[in-house]
Amino acid sequence: MKDEMDAFGGDNAPLAVLEGAAAALSENPGLEIVLTGSEEEIRRCAAEHGVDLSGIGIADAPLVMEMHDEAKSVIRAKRNSSMGKGLDLVADGEADVFISAGPTGALLMGATMIVKRIKHVDRPALGTVLPGMDGYTMIIDCGANAECRPEMLRQFGVMGSIYMERVLGIKNPRVAVANIGAEDTKGTDLQKDAYALLKEDPRVNFIGNVEGRGLMMSECDVAVCDGFTGNMCLKSIEGTAIAMSKMLKGMFYKNAKTKIAGLLVKSEMGEFKKKLDYSEVGGAPFIGLRGPVIKAHGSSDAKAFKNAVKQAVSWVGADVTAAITEAFAAGEETKDE
Amino acid sequence: MKDEMDAFGGDNAPLAVLEGAAAALSENPGLEIVLTGSEEEIRRCAAEHGVDLSGIGIADAPLVMEMHDEAKSVIRAKRNSSMGKGLDLVADGEADVFISAGPTGALLMGATMIVKRIKHVDRPALGTVLPGMDGYTMIIDCGANAECRPEMLRQFGVMGSIYMERVLGIKNPRVAVANIGAEDTKGTDLQKDAYALLKEDPRVNFIGNVEGRGLMMSECDVAVCDGFTGNMCLKSIEGTAIAMSKMLKGMFYKNAKTKIAGLLVKSEMGEFKKKLDYSEVGGAPFIGLRGPVIKAHGSSDAKAFKNAVKQAVSWVGADVTAAITEAFAAGEETKDE
Repeated sequence: MKDEMDAFGGDNAPLAVLEGAAAALSENPGLEIVLTGSEEEIRRCAAEHGVDLSGIGIADAPLVMEMHDEAKSVIRAKRNSSMGKGLDLVADGEADVFISAGPTGALLMGATMIVKRIKHVDRPALGTVLPGMDGYTMIIDCGANAECRPEMLRQFGVMGSIYMERVLGIKNPRVAVANIGAEDTKGTDLQKDAYALLKEDPRVNFIGNVEGRGLMMSECDVAVCDGFTGNMCLKSIEGTAIAMSKMLKGMFYKNAKTKIAGLLVKSEMGEFKKKLDYSEVGGAPFIGLRGPVIKAHGSSDAKAFKNAVKQAVSWVGADVTAAITEAFAAGEETKDE
Repeated sequence: MKDEMDAFGGDNAPLAVLEGAAAALSENPGLEIVLTGSEEEIRRCAAEHGVDLSGIGIADAPLVMEMHDEAKSVIRAKRNSSMGKGLDLVADGEADVFISAGPTGALLMGATMIVKRIKHVDRPALGTVLPGMDGYTMIIDCGANAECRPEMLRQFGVMGSIYMERVLGIKNPRVAVANIGAEDTKGTDLQKDAYALLKEDPRVNFIGNVEGRGLMMSECDVAVCDGFTGNMCLKSIEGTAIAMSKMLKGMFYKNAKTKIAGLLVKSEMGEFKKKLDYSEVGGAPFIGLRGPVIKAHGSSDAKAFKNAVKQAVSWVGADVTAAITEAFAAGEETKDE
């Protein structure tokens, strides 16, 4: 398989992308990795930092999508950017997957317009796989569609379920609506109507509503919601994990006794952190497109990029796109306006 | 001051309420506490468990609002319940504050209809004070109003700001809109319009948007949002804290070495847990009514009830209701439909 990576996306680009690509390739020599971006700068950076690029291809694209750029510029004015190029290669079937840590808005818009939606999918959605207490839970959508209709939430449930079953190996994933209570009368019309639609959908194992508390407690495998809610929950969880980790660190540094305790649990704390570490799971899959696109975190380091490649390999290998295409082949009752 | 407590609200009622009331009274002997509910059952429970009720009054009300009761029944059919009675006493000025761990929907509806709103306040809101990394942050609304208009978010900002300044002693509280990005173009129309309204409101120190990550990181003192979003964020935070605490506990129990470490940091872990413990802050203030009403957590124990009384004393002493009445006296541009 051929894995395309945006060499100029993210805070630590291009070095972290180059190092991540090289590490992924050394773990998985059969892989074909192509970096998109200015060939000159990629070669200069690799030479400067001694990164071995042998076996890694480069698709030259001199421009870079910056944070302040209008999202839509990736489609026209900046099509020849590291991001636009990567999307074009996936759209043309020249690459199997594209990974980018570039600006989210541009990547989502570009992917939707260039790679295009699977037939009958109203809106592609960004899923995030949370490392919870007893397993992984996907929150979908996490920010691609701030406002949603109930039919979209149903589709997110179907797509998320296929992803979690095939990529994470969870049999018959439990799908739930993220909501403020367990009863089907809770929430706004969006949650109530999505509940009714999912309950009748034979493609998913619908278990009802999941409250915010249940997301990290592994109470479901797929939690569907609008992108505003998903983003708020995800970042609330992230902020809590960071705040608690900092408080814990402070606790262990308090005095001689606590420092000894810190040394005694050093390796276990490492495992604990690793368990909560998003970057272990790779990036956020953008699901519902004709080709897989992964949004890596803006702050991704080499390890996170390496893990995103690993995730890309699983995604492509699991043939998720074909499975979603098939699940939606019969059409949906409601079409996108 | 006279503090009214619903003796039959919550999972551990009436015993936890009785014990909490007795503990609060022994800490603050000048206080007057009245329990609402069946006098017979209260006396029986106190006798059975040896709780000293001397100095504690009882306002007899034989009925109890149950979880499955329709919320509106507190206004008519079950007005003579421990909850309805307490609300009536606050409405009539016979008590200064009412604390209940009973069903949330009934308490919010009953309080709004019986205690009534402060003039020009469109909707009272439930605030929750989060113990964050560097101080306290109030999320308002946390579930009283699942759907909101921008004007309501502005009012939540004004009310939350007054509460945090007067009850928590935070000078010039930083008010922010809970949103999916920092820029004023982020979010749905609700957040964008609330941003514009708060920016122009001289009653608050508006600092822009706060993302989910910032809630536990103490990036603002008051985060305003609709009740759906607030509830989802709050419970996501709660679930993360619980999941992480359980994982940590598992870590310390792993082997002999980690158990020793656990013993060495035992008191610090206690402080750590205490810092994250909601019940330390009391209950969720229901703000914007003519009399203070506190929603205690359904799972409150005696300590949580004791802390809710402490919070009630601060709230009443700080004269928040008068301050909100004054802040809204000039009227608002937009009235409730």
